Amino acid sequence: MRATVGFQGVAGAYSESAAIKYFGSKVRTKAFNEFDQVFKAITQGKVEYAVVPVENSLAGSIHENYDHLLHHRVWVCGEVKVRVRHFLLGTKKSKLSDIGIVYSHPQALAQCQGFIKRRLKKAVSHPYFDTAGSAQFVEERSQNHIAAIASEMAGKYYSLKVLASEIEDDVQNFTRFLVLRRSKVITNKRCAYKTSIVFSLKSIPGALHKALSIFAIREIDLLKIESRPIPGEPWNYMFYLDVQGKVWDKVLESCIRHLKEISFKVKVLGSYPADP
Amino acid sequence: MRATVGFQGVAGAYSESAAIKYFGSKVRTKAFNEFDQVFKAITQGKVEYAVVPVENSLAGSIHENYDHLLHHRVWVCGEVKVRVRHFLLGTKKSKLSDIGIVYSHPQALAQCQGFIKRRLKKAVSHPYFDTAGSAQFVEERSQNHIAAIASEMAGKYYSLKVLASEIEDDVQNFTRFLVLRRSKVITNKRCAYKTSIVFSLKSIPGALHKALSIFAIREIDLLKIESRPIPGEPWNYMFYLDVQGKVWDKVLESCIRHLKEISFKVKVLGSYPADP
Repeated sequence: MRATVGFQGVAGAYSESAAIKYFGSKVRTKAFNEFDQVFKAITQGKVEYAVVPVENSLAGSIHENYDHLLHHRVWVCGEVKVRVRHFLLGTKKSKLSDIGIVYSHPQALAQCQGFIKRRLKKAVSHPYFDTAGSAQFVEERSQNHIAAIASEMAGKYYSLKVLASEIEDDVQNFTRFLVLRRSKVITNKRCAYKTSIVFSLKSIPGALHKALSIFAIREIDLLKIESRPIPGEPWNYMFYLDVQGKVWDKVLESCIRHLKEISFKVKVLGSYPADP
Repeated sequence: MRATVGFQGVAGAYSESAAIKYFGSKVRTKAFNEFDQVFKAITQGKVEYAVVPVENSLAGSIHENYDHLLHHRVWVCGEVKVRVRHFLLGTKKSKLSDIGIVYSHPQALAQCQGFIKRRLKKAVSHPYFDTAGSAQFVEERSQNHIAAIASEMAGKYYSLKVLASEIEDDVQNFTRFLVLRRSKVITNKRCAYKTSIVFSLKSIPGALHKALSIFAIREIDLLKIESRPIPGEPWNYMFYLDVQGKVWDKVLESCIRHLKEISFKVKVLGSYPADP
């Protein structure tokens, strides 16, 4: 039996593209309205895997999903980076010059503003909840003067015509997704591994420096660091850390043990092959 | 002559509330459609100050504005934290039980989903570009069955009635704004200061640890740290750092000089009184 992969959004969402990039085109996916439903589904065994976004190169880290990672018993077993490529999608009979209204998520509309100004001079932009949902809406309405901005996959899913490809103004638009499963899995592929850790420290001068020493003295490289104040605890901080290596290797195992000695709380979110 | 403060959005936006919280209710504000227009306006002297959001406790850092801070000659002279309180706003004659459609930015609609499900059972949510814009739309339409989710100030601005107050599901919703001016200003108020720095390092094991040592050995506390890959340079990272103190104090001056010795690039964004 094939495993099912949960994601947030409607069919054709960028999260579903990420699931397909990671698991291949034959993957069976299941859409959920909310991120917390995705996390519940995986902890309750309703889906075997989930794919959730954690950061975008333009918009930053998605704290909501870091919170869910902290509060749910899940294991990060992989990561996948997807370049966000926006497509202008219309009905089969529509032409670029017909388009009077463009529907999409406000962020996608903002990211394609240059294109809209240049090529769709008479068109008005209309906000929608999500990109794939706007494609579904254009299919349902079936009018030649409306178009959606969404992924190429959403266009295929809702049988829409590509009126313009890769219309995003900034090509440095990547989203990083984490692949989750319910319990820890130990793999030893011949590739670079990453480990994601969350820990909290008391805000005393040099506390973070001390924590990073743990990795520096063992020559473990840091790949990402982000501090976040803990709500309701003004002087305590949480840190998200990505480091090289896997927790079942001795060196990183020692780092985690050492980190536990000086931190309030340490949670290893997972070790997984890095997406280069 | 009173100074003018630029912000992104329409009148009644949360950025304008931040400007009022910082400068007082008599401040003269000027709205711009895009963040880059706000930054251009300040560098060209069209406005004396600007207020821009840089992070939200739920949504994370706003990388776009960090990019603008890096690429424009501006100086951070203050910060202000605003608790995001959403209000349900209708026409003067509307009642809560009348409401059939709620307009707002998708993020605000998502943040009030619990309230909408509980109290507006028959209402449908409708996405809009921004919160204050949705209030403006409800005023223009002047229909009793539609409402907007926006700030209390937007309600006053567009003469709408508050149908429900503080309807956000999560009360830990804060946005941090930076106050900008064109050139460096040295102040010495009797309060805690913060300094914001951006710097880039080569990704060698321990490079960040070495950089943080500079502050740790001088007992300067870190208040925020965030790494960000540099687009197109896979092995180089940029770091956003907030530390205690002001750059015109000797200790921090030495830190910056020391940091310049080991970094590719260092930019001090500003030193300013911390908003507690």
